Amino acid sequence: MTSLMLIGVRYYHTWSIVKKISLEVCRAVGEITLLYTHTSRESLKMELLADVCLLPGEDRIIDKDIIYICPFNGAVKGKVLITNYRLHFKSSDPDVPVTLDVPLGAISRVEKMGGASSRGENSYGLDITCKDVRNLRFALKQEGHSRRDIFELLFRHAFPLSHGQPLFAYVTQEKYEENGWNVYKPIEEFRRQGLPNNKWRITFINKNYELCDTYPTVLAVPYKSKEEDLRRVAAFRSRGRIPVLSWIHRENQAVIVRCSQPLVGMSGKRNKDDERYLDLIREANETIKLTIYDARPNVNAVANKATGGGYEGDEYQNAELIFLDIQNIHVMRESLKKLKDIVYPNVEESHWLSSLESTHWLEHIKLVLSGAIQVADKVSSGNSVVVHCSDGWDRTAQLTSLAMLMLDSHYRTLRGFQVLIEKEWISFGHKFASRIGHGDKNHADQDRSPIFVQFIDCVWQMTKQFPTAFEFNERLLLTMLDQLYSCRFGTFLYNCESARDHHEVRSKTVSLWSLVNSKMDMYLNPFYTPESGRVLYPVASMRHLELWVNYYIRWNPRIRQQQQSPVEQRYKELLALRDEYLKKLEELQLSDSSPSSRLANSSTPNTSSTSSTPSQQYTHLHTPF
Amino acid sequence: MTSLMLIGVRYYHTWSIVKKISLEVCRAVGEITLLYTHTSRESLKMELLADVCLLPGEDRIIDKDIIYICPFNGAVKGKVLITNYRLHFKSSDPDVPVTLDVPLGAISRVEKMGGASSRGENSYGLDITCKDVRNLRFALKQEGHSRRDIFELLFRHAFPLSHGQPLFAYVTQEKYEENGWNVYKPIEEFRRQGLPNNKWRITFINKNYELCDTYPTVLAVPYKSKEEDLRRVAAFRSRGRIPVLSWIHRENQAVIVRCSQPLVGMSGKRNKDDERYLDLIREANETIKLTIYDARPNVNAVANKATGGGYEGDEYQNAELIFLDIQNIHVMRESLKKLKDIVYPNVEESHWLSSLESTHWLEHIKLVLSGAIQVADKVSSGNSVVVHCSDGWDRTAQLTSLAMLMLDSHYRTLRGFQVLIEKEWISFGHKFASRIGHGDKNHADQDRSPIFVQFIDCVWQMTKQFPTAFEFNERLLLTMLDQLYSCRFGTFLYNCESARDHHEVRSKTVSLWSLVNSKMDMYLNPFYTPESGRVLYPVASMRHLELWVNYYIRWNPRIRQQQQSPVEQRYKELLALRDEYLKKLEELQLSDSSPSSRLANSSTPNTSSTSSTPSQQYTHLHTPF
Repeated sequence: MTSLMLIGVRYYHTWSIVKKISLEVCRAVGEITLLYTHTSRESLKMELLADVCLLPGEDRIIDKDIIYICPFNGAVKGKVLITNYRLHFKSSDPDVPVTLDVPLGAISRVEKMGGASSRGENSYGLDITCKDVRNLRFALKQEGHSRRDIFELLFRHAFPLSHGQPLFAYVTQEKYEENGWNVYKPIEEFRRQGLPNNKWRITFINKNYELCDTYPTVLAVPYKSKEEDLRRVAAFRSRGRIPVLSWIHRENQAVIVRCSQPLVGMSGKRNKDDERYLDLIREANETIKLTIYDARPNVNAVANKATGGGYEGDEYQNAELIFLDIQNIHVMRESLKKLKDIVYPNVEESHWLSSLESTHWLEHIKLVLSGAIQVADKVSSGNSVVVHCSDGWDRTAQLTSLAMLMLDSHYRTLRGFQVLIEKEWISFGHKFASRIGHGDKNHADQDRSPIFVQFIDCVWQMTKQFPTAFEFNERLLLTMLDQLYSCRFGTFLYNCESARDHHEVRSKTVSLWSLVNSKMDMYLNPFYTPESGRVLYPVASMRHLELWVNYYIRWNPRIRQQQQSPVEQRYKELLALRDEYLKKLEELQLSDSSPSSRLANSSTPNTSSTSSTPSQQYTHLHTPF
Repeated sequence: MTSLMLIGVRYYHTWSIVKKISLEVCRAVGEITLLYTHTSRESLKMELLADVCLLPGEDRIIDKDIIYICPFNGAVKGKVLITNYRLHFKSSDPDVPVTLDVPLGAISRVEKMGGASSRGENSYGLDITCKDVRNLRFALKQEGHSRRDIFELLFRHAFPLSHGQPLFAYVTQEKYEENGWNVYKPIEEFRRQGLPNNKWRITFINKNYELCDTYPTVLAVPYKSKEEDLRRVAAFRSRGRIPVLSWIHRENQAVIVRCSQPLVGMSGKRNKDDERYLDLIREANETIKLTIYDARPNVNAVANKATGGGYEGDEYQNAELIFLDIQNIHVMRESLKKLKDIVYPNVEESHWLSSLESTHWLEHIKLVLSGAIQVADKVSSGNSVVVHCSDGWDRTAQLTSLAMLMLDSHYRTLRGFQVLIEKEWISFGHKFASRIGHGDKNHADQDRSPIFVQFIDCVWQMTKQFPTAFEFNERLLLTMLDQLYSCRFGTFLYNCESARDHHEVRSKTVSLWSLVNSKMDMYLNPFYTPESGRVLYPVASMRHLELWVNYYIRWNPRIRQQQQSPVEQRYKELLALRDEYLKKLEELQLSDSSPSSRLANSSTPNTSSTSSTPSQQYTHLHTPF
């Protein structure tokens, strides 16, 4: 290997040797970026670890000679560096060039492996389980309790909240041109949707989080509902999460309303206020029958009655209830665990398809997507819907945000997608802290679950089926999932707005969107073709769903990494060529006032490299499911 | 539905109504092309079937009112037309617009369904099994033996060879601008490869098919071999199919040699001539050890000794034998049958992945591809190889042609691919007639097997993994598989060259390449980027192989048909735009001699719509398998 430059490769095994890395390059790319060149053995040891690009505010904690038990290359000698942000390993043997770069936030569990008396080569060391579908094993020399210090330091810094320490997001000194905290402004977003109007009003009843402590401060509710109605409804909805508007269809005025389950309980309690309130929602656009999508399997909804919950019964006139059969957080967690088992470290080859089926991961993806399709289809044909699960912060967020992604092309832009995440996930209280377990050592916590990962997987499935419909690319999705765990940005921290306010996230941490929007080029899909009116209905059948290999199996060096597809590369070249020609044409026309100078004004699309030819007339692609 | 024009839709269910079709359009597109517009109910009955576009030489045999038992729409009333080439059905109900267009050659079996006394609606009729992964059922009125005539006529014309009638390829009067029979000229192809040279000579020993009646007349053999050597070797190789050169590597002179198994038998016979001959092959480029790839599983190769066959033993010094574990024609036939069971008419959704696995179809694809990868890799690194199975006309053809497709970018062009098919499949005696059963009523013939379909599937897998490496598109592959059965062209008729000569195929029938090369635009991949030196190594792992939905599940209207991908569409638009700009630039430069007029000569690629920007420097993409 001679000289090879990899931009934007993060946390991957890399088969080259780090020689030199400049802080400027790191900052320019906005991520850990490694510049690899061939290095002599002599200079290697000198430079080992000296050239890791640390983030501003990131500090070295310890470094140590160590052996990485690589599942693909066997034992690899090298050096590990631990900072307050990352674990970095680099092999010292240039013939086995392995580099690891793992944010401590991605670690879910650190264990000692092998006792003091353990035998066998490399049996004494550390076993690290990661949240991002991989495990890491390191071996140390058995003499002198050599692992004691590294284990304790790693444990403390990987789980700062369990040790009374701040998350790295509060320590980092990163600065970006853009302030990502300005991406989402609830009132502006409602205004974009055409709200308030004569049917829907904006209320600030929750400005002190008194109506519902897991809801945002700004809510949209039926115009006819009074503040005291909202309070009475809140008493009948789990955790006060009342039905509020998430999205309204510009033409037909049908709405997506989200909430938690009604507190029906074993005795089958009724609440006239809740019933009347749902009817106000129905009336707002004269929907004949309001459709209530309960994300849960029927039996689970029934079982919830035992703990005071339940679902809307026949007493809700003018409404029909549909169960979407999506399993709960525990089932999803176990499914991803099974998936990890068949892809890491080795991919089960001989019975790949049936092994994949037995994880049920794609089946769950299918149910989530097909639920969202039903929501989108109903709204698209003019009927208002209510979506809930039990608490309305997991499956409900998946369904409403996916349906909105299908219905509203704005959310398919790079900035619009950020708004969607901020709105449906962050502001509406998806419990990121509990689901991910940021900085918390309690790896077996039953509240943890990959609900957001599953949602991003659904988005990825949509981008695969509609390769020109999304302004952002796969790299954005991968970056989001990596930063979901890293604790480098404030974006995914805490369970809800009120907690975020309390911990001053917006003033004390950096938003992930600051990074993304300072380097938008990296996250743009060159094939993007804006089509504002188009509703996307992905095919939610097993034959059309794929395992997201580039995410779940990316640590495996035997899986071909699809960095940039050759088609994408060709397309970008062609775009550049078009722009070059256009520039030359304009230059020629400046020195020439012939009739062809109309060209630049009439028949040419705009010249930015992300622009597109005039958008085509598409019909809705509605495929049966 | 208002007005909709579908070009190139063939044999599909179409959800529109045929109104008018002009012969010119048919001829222009070169296939059955239907022009659909909305039609009133009144005019419909009048026009039913009057507007089917017949081929020159195609004649009406019978038409009849009939009910098509559509697996997707239920019973559909309409009219069926049978000609000497096709079965055409059109529904008479404009609300259920179903059209079928099936070449009689695609029919493998016609059976009567329900006796004269059978009860139940639509239980009396015809059951038609097709070679192209579908079945058709028609119901007729029970009175007056109404199905007798249609059954007999269909049976006679679907299986003309069983009734002493000519295949339709001998009847059609189609004319094309290009003569596809000129595509492949063996000597020219050898010359392109750099042959003859001082190590390899061309021999005409087989000009009367006396050495081997299933081989072509022109063969390339080691320079040092004498004609009498070849005769002695032929006596020791199954059906006289001696080892001959198929391809030579321009730089390292390593060769791919193909043949049939040696006639070792139970007693373990040796043949010094055969051993010496293989050593001549090895010596030609000083390969240290000649690698013999036996496509079969080891046990099958051993079992073949019982019928006089076998494999090369230790007596072959300087050679190593590797079994590639690919199953025989019977296993492949049963595998595709199982695949048909899970995709037609209904796709098994709930256990899709494990059902797919249980057909083993993708596993067979994987073994064929990975065998070819091993051949290509060996040759690429300078070692000559011999490939055989039992007779050397099924698995051997798959392996050599796929390896050549990986190694030689010429075969990845539209014309080069035709040469590859003509050479490795047609001239080397893949038994198309026996495998497909052209015009033969004996549907249960054990010689039938989808070996060529499997090969085209492997090619499709490669085009998916290398979307810019092939000049041709998926439509070409689909067209080839449709015409494989249709008996409209002479290309895939008969088992070998000698039979083709005897039946005067080249003078009495039209070549499929006449159709293709008269309308090349339709079969070109816009993303194609020529890279002459690149060796393609696809990943032959289950995670990277896909079921070819657009072929195997295309009859199912619930499967989204991927006509042209939006990315492809965008790319073509951009190509057109580039060409437009380039033209304008040239116009401007004609009236202007400014320095920018250098543009057209230096930095611009050529302007044809299939051209590409300057080819990039790629390294070989060699992924472990």
